[in-house]
Amino acid sequence: MSTNELGSKADLGVPIPGRRRFLNTAALAGIAGSGLGATVVTARAATNVNAPVKSEVKPGELDDYYLFASGGHSGEVRVYGVPSGRTIKRIPVFNVDPMVGWGITNESKKIMGLKPDGSLKYMTGDTHHVHGSYTDGTYDGKYFWVNDKLNGRLARIRGDYLECDQITEVPNVQGFHGLFPDKRDPVDPKINHTTRVFCGGEFHVPFTAAGPDVKDPKKYACLFTCIDAETMQVRWQVKVDGNMDLCATSYDGKYAALNQYNTENGVVYQDMMEAERDACVVFDIARIEAAIKAGKSFTLGDSKVPVVDGTKAANKDPRTALTLYVPVPKNPHGVNMSPDGKYYVCSGKLSPTATVISHELVQKWFKGELKDPRDTVVAEPEIGLGPLHTGFDGRGNCYTSLFLDSQIVKWNLDKAIAQYKGDKAAQVVLDRIDVHYQPGHTYCSMGETKEADGRYLNSGNKFSKDRFLPVGPLHVETEQLIDISGDKMRLLQDHTAYCEPHDGIIVRRDKVRTKQICELSDHPLAVKSPNDSRIDRKGNKVTVYLTAIAPTYSKTEFTVKRGDEVTIVLTNLDKVEDLTHGFGIQKYNVNFIVNPQQTASVTFKAEHAGMFWYYCTHFCHALHLEMRGRMIVEA
Amino acid sequence: MSTNELGSKADLGVPIPGRRRFLNTAALAGIAGSGLGATVVTARAATNVNAPVKSEVKPGELDDYYLFASGGHSGEVRVYGVPSGRTIKRIPVFNVDPMVGWGITNESKKIMGLKPDGSLKYMTGDTHHVHGSYTDGTYDGKYFWVNDKLNGRLARIRGDYLECDQITEVPNVQGFHGLFPDKRDPVDPKINHTTRVFCGGEFHVPFTAAGPDVKDPKKYACLFTCIDAETMQVRWQVKVDGNMDLCATSYDGKYAALNQYNTENGVVYQDMMEAERDACVVFDIARIEAAIKAGKSFTLGDSKVPVVDGTKAANKDPRTALTLYVPVPKNPHGVNMSPDGKYYVCSGKLSPTATVISHELVQKWFKGELKDPRDTVVAEPEIGLGPLHTGFDGRGNCYTSLFLDSQIVKWNLDKAIAQYKGDKAAQVVLDRIDVHYQPGHTYCSMGETKEADGRYLNSGNKFSKDRFLPVGPLHVETEQLIDISGDKMRLLQDHTAYCEPHDGIIVRRDKVRTKQICELSDHPLAVKSPNDSRIDRKGNKVTVYLTAIAPTYSKTEFTVKRGDEVTIVLTNLDKVEDLTHGFGIQKYNVNFIVNPQQTASVTFKAEHAGMFWYYCTHFCHALHLEMRGRMIVEA
Repeated sequence: MSTNELGSKADLGVPIPGRRRFLNTAALAGIAGSGLGATVVTARAATNVNAPVKSEVKPGELDDYYLFASGGHSGEVRVYGVPSGRTIKRIPVFNVDPMVGWGITNESKKIMGLKPDGSLKYMTGDTHHVHGSYTDGTYDGKYFWVNDKLNGRLARIRGDYLECDQITEVPNVQGFHGLFPDKRDPVDPKINHTTRVFCGGEFHVPFTAAGPDVKDPKKYACLFTCIDAETMQVRWQVKVDGNMDLCATSYDGKYAALNQYNTENGVVYQDMMEAERDACVVFDIARIEAAIKAGKSFTLGDSKVPVVDGTKAANKDPRTALTLYVPVPKNPHGVNMSPDGKYYVCSGKLSPTATVISHELVQKWFKGELKDPRDTVVAEPEIGLGPLHTGFDGRGNCYTSLFLDSQIVKWNLDKAIAQYKGDKAAQVVLDRIDVHYQPGHTYCSMGETKEADGRYLNSGNKFSKDRFLPVGPLHVETEQLIDISGDKMRLLQDHTAYCEPHDGIIVRRDKVRTKQICELSDHPLAVKSPNDSRIDRKGNKVTVYLTAIAPTYSKTEFTVKRGDEVTIVLTNLDKVEDLTHGFGIQKYNVNFIVNPQQTASVTFKAEHAGMFWYYCTHFCHALHLEMRGRMIVEA
Repeated sequence: MSTNELGSKADLGVPIPGRRRFLNTAALAGIAGSGLGATVVTARAATNVNAPVKSEVKPGELDDYYLFASGGHSGEVRVYGVPSGRTIKRIPVFNVDPMVGWGITNESKKIMGLKPDGSLKYMTGDTHHVHGSYTDGTYDGKYFWVNDKLNGRLARIRGDYLECDQITEVPNVQGFHGLFPDKRDPVDPKINHTTRVFCGGEFHVPFTAAGPDVKDPKKYACLFTCIDAETMQVRWQVKVDGNMDLCATSYDGKYAALNQYNTENGVVYQDMMEAERDACVVFDIARIEAAIKAGKSFTLGDSKVPVVDGTKAANKDPRTALTLYVPVPKNPHGVNMSPDGKYYVCSGKLSPTATVISHELVQKWFKGELKDPRDTVVAEPEIGLGPLHTGFDGRGNCYTSLFLDSQIVKWNLDKAIAQYKGDKAAQVVLDRIDVHYQPGHTYCSMGETKEADGRYLNSGNKFSKDRFLPVGPLHVETEQLIDISGDKMRLLQDHTAYCEPHDGIIVRRDKVRTKQICELSDHPLAVKSPNDSRIDRKGNKVTVYLTAIAPTYSKTEFTVKRGDEVTIVLTNLDKVEDLTHGFGIQKYNVNFIVNPQQTASVTFKAEHAGMFWYYCTHFCHALHLEMRGRMIVEA
């Protein structure tokens, strides 16, 4: 019997016409030339950036871009197609997902983190920003990162499987908000790719669990954190004044810039909006690392991570400063780097302005060649009410979300600079388009890379109100896709987003190179043949090694004793693309999947005596329903 | 300060132009006429069933239908718009969802079910079928139900909030597969709406946890279960021969029919496909309830639910039989009732046929007027390979998914009956359309009601293979929307579905009447005013009563002691539609939302000493980021 053919003749006792036979086995053809191991889907043709944008993707057509989006407090990352808006994947990260078994398999639980009793430390997360790794100033598809504001964690998604492979909890940080990978090394020109990920701490905290400082906000501070892109270990932290949220990194690797609201260190919102100006803080990465190397660091609480002092008080001399605080109007929310590498654009949420900071002048400031941090500002146009985040089209234009105006405003950087210099005739604002309603993040196709192509813009809106059929008190949110290829912006589609459509990046499809089949060697316990299927018992610990080949498991019955600690190790030996199997056990709260050639395991206590069917929960074959077996738990 | 205006002038210290002021407060207008309580969105205009079908819904347009879909082993129910395919809502049911706090709040945990230690009994579920409550043979929008095949549960979703409000675990059943509500009472003609929900048990099981019967499949059986639609209590069960999966109910309330594969009672797949014919079993509801009333029931195991014997051996005389077993070719998978109430259509998965059973003849059989169960069959056309599920257009045509042929086949019921009677010229099959790939369930707009309108068909496909951009080893699945309004079927769109697109119903939009604002009185502990905000301590149990009004909580600081059992009760006092608040506590694995006027609570042990920010996780206001407070846990 050919086990890899969906509904082959032998299985079903019914004839299959030629066309359908081809169809049913077509999936095999895809891996015919690649041997039995992993297949890499080599880059599909790059999007033609000169082709007209479109609002509809017809049946069978592929999207031009991947949109990687953080899913807010759903705890997941999503992959949409652009322009279709179709959700091509949910990637569980900080949430539990019974579909794939995330938070259920031993492998995923280890990544998520456990309490001493073996239960999950967290089942919640609040993802805010997702960014990809860079090589030569553009996406290389190797990694994507997403942060958890709720429990202070950074997660990494490997680009080949599009699955989370590591999560790091950041010490002494609450409200980990903005993150951005570096784009090259600040010192070594040979390192032209991402090796660090920067994390902004939003909520100011005490660095002690007891004593008077716990209650005194004057003793609180925030930390800026650097995590190693490969090892996911925390490298170092910098203590700063004020809260940080978003992060942008320079294309030369030298700086990370984070906007700061609540420089007042207020604890209630009224106090947080007292000052007319907050800041954008710029970190000099090379100097920070030199300071740590020179032993100028300390540690906080139980953490062994070296921390240096980046507060204003400790960094008065620009020529040695680790940090530059550029005053920016009122409670800014968002900082983004222009694709030419020249400007940081930082928006004042409670001011109708965007502040443009020159990368060149920041360098001059750090050399001591400027008097005042504000001297790094080259423009501050009024663009509308509630400006938040800015996308770029690679043609010198900015697209800023206006929360209060509920618009995206298109404005020109050079004109803004000219206006700031005194050119009263400069027409800064070029266009406005209404979005529905109240946009948060907005971003353009490839807009955070040197390859910004100015085709699509996505507006992640916080309220949908009347845009979709009513579904009760909880509304879906809106992702609106906008054509920015012409002079005027054009609304293409209202897509929906399960709360919330936080932030995202739009990545040209040739940048993402996934493997469609796992490697058997990915897992040390892989059961390489049905013949290797077995039951090992050590005391009351029982390990059941199983394989799945459609439509059967290698064992259709196994027996354990009540009270045993049972581990199931399951390998999917099917090699056909898309032929995933599931494994659920009745009444035992066990469910997970294994993709082709993947191995996963679960461990549980055999608490209930009796007979419990296990079965394939992920459709695999015409006889999927018949793919099951019995676990006998002897009393 | 007007607390309900998003970004009002007073809040932000910046002027708001007229148009935007209107925009920002527009949400208020929607409830202006309804007082302060719940608003009901009265039926939006019914879809014009004569309007042409369409493939695209333009920005700002509404969909014509709701599609309620079971989400397979994701454990959730989804609400899509038709024809756009947009996901308008995910309804967490058997899964944990940190976005809404499902499985995290006390209220949701109580619905989901707990272990004695207070932890969730299950975090997994495998939803298969979703069906709505009926009045006069069509949807009334009051309830929707979905089953869990993995842990044997039935969940109910209330139609006004579109949230799960009850879950019932069915005793002595494994592999609870098919479900269908009744459409009226079998005896009382005044009860013209759903009062019972029927559940088919798929896996045959022993009814004991110990002893030799546990291992002996000959001692196994399946149960058909009736659950009260209002109380969600199990009313009764029927013991049957063979495995059941899908369920259909007659429009007169008399019968429930379930297709049966594995009448062999095999435990491995080879044995399950030995017999050339399996069955469709029809239950006579009135007789079953009369038998129970007459005391002819028994109980099984620990369950107190009355069970009657519906096996063939116990039901040999049709005139008193509780069950009718109609032989149907090989491993049927799917039974559906035609909208005219005349026929049960049951497909033989491993036979290329559909079997049409006459409702009228079933009635005759139960009266003893027919010799043989097969005499109820009026047609058995060959329609293609791997036929599974059948949808209806209300014009006498059937649309059956063909798993192996990867097609939907359109065929005519009257022609099939004529052919069965001997009309060799009858053209039964009218059209075929390829789907991509391997369809499971298929269903038509309003197709399971008397109002079947023959406009749209959805094909839930189990493999997507090459239809979307590659996203690694785990592929998304496909929901294909097909125009069935003309003679020829026409593929409109490939939508994606997170695994898996199991089953669904397409409901005309005027049938769903949701409330957009909750009632304060929904929750006995509602905190009705910020002035009612308080902290109650009883021993080491501390309850913190909070309100949320954008952009602040009623308390921005509270103190507990390490080791306390802390309960947070939070009421959202905002009354603006779509103005949901979140509540997350740093490092405490707490996150949930409260919709306008909703109250929810969480309980946790204050394990860690220190200061922990709590903050609004669901975007609510221009000062959302500033909406936070401090929990001090004293060491």
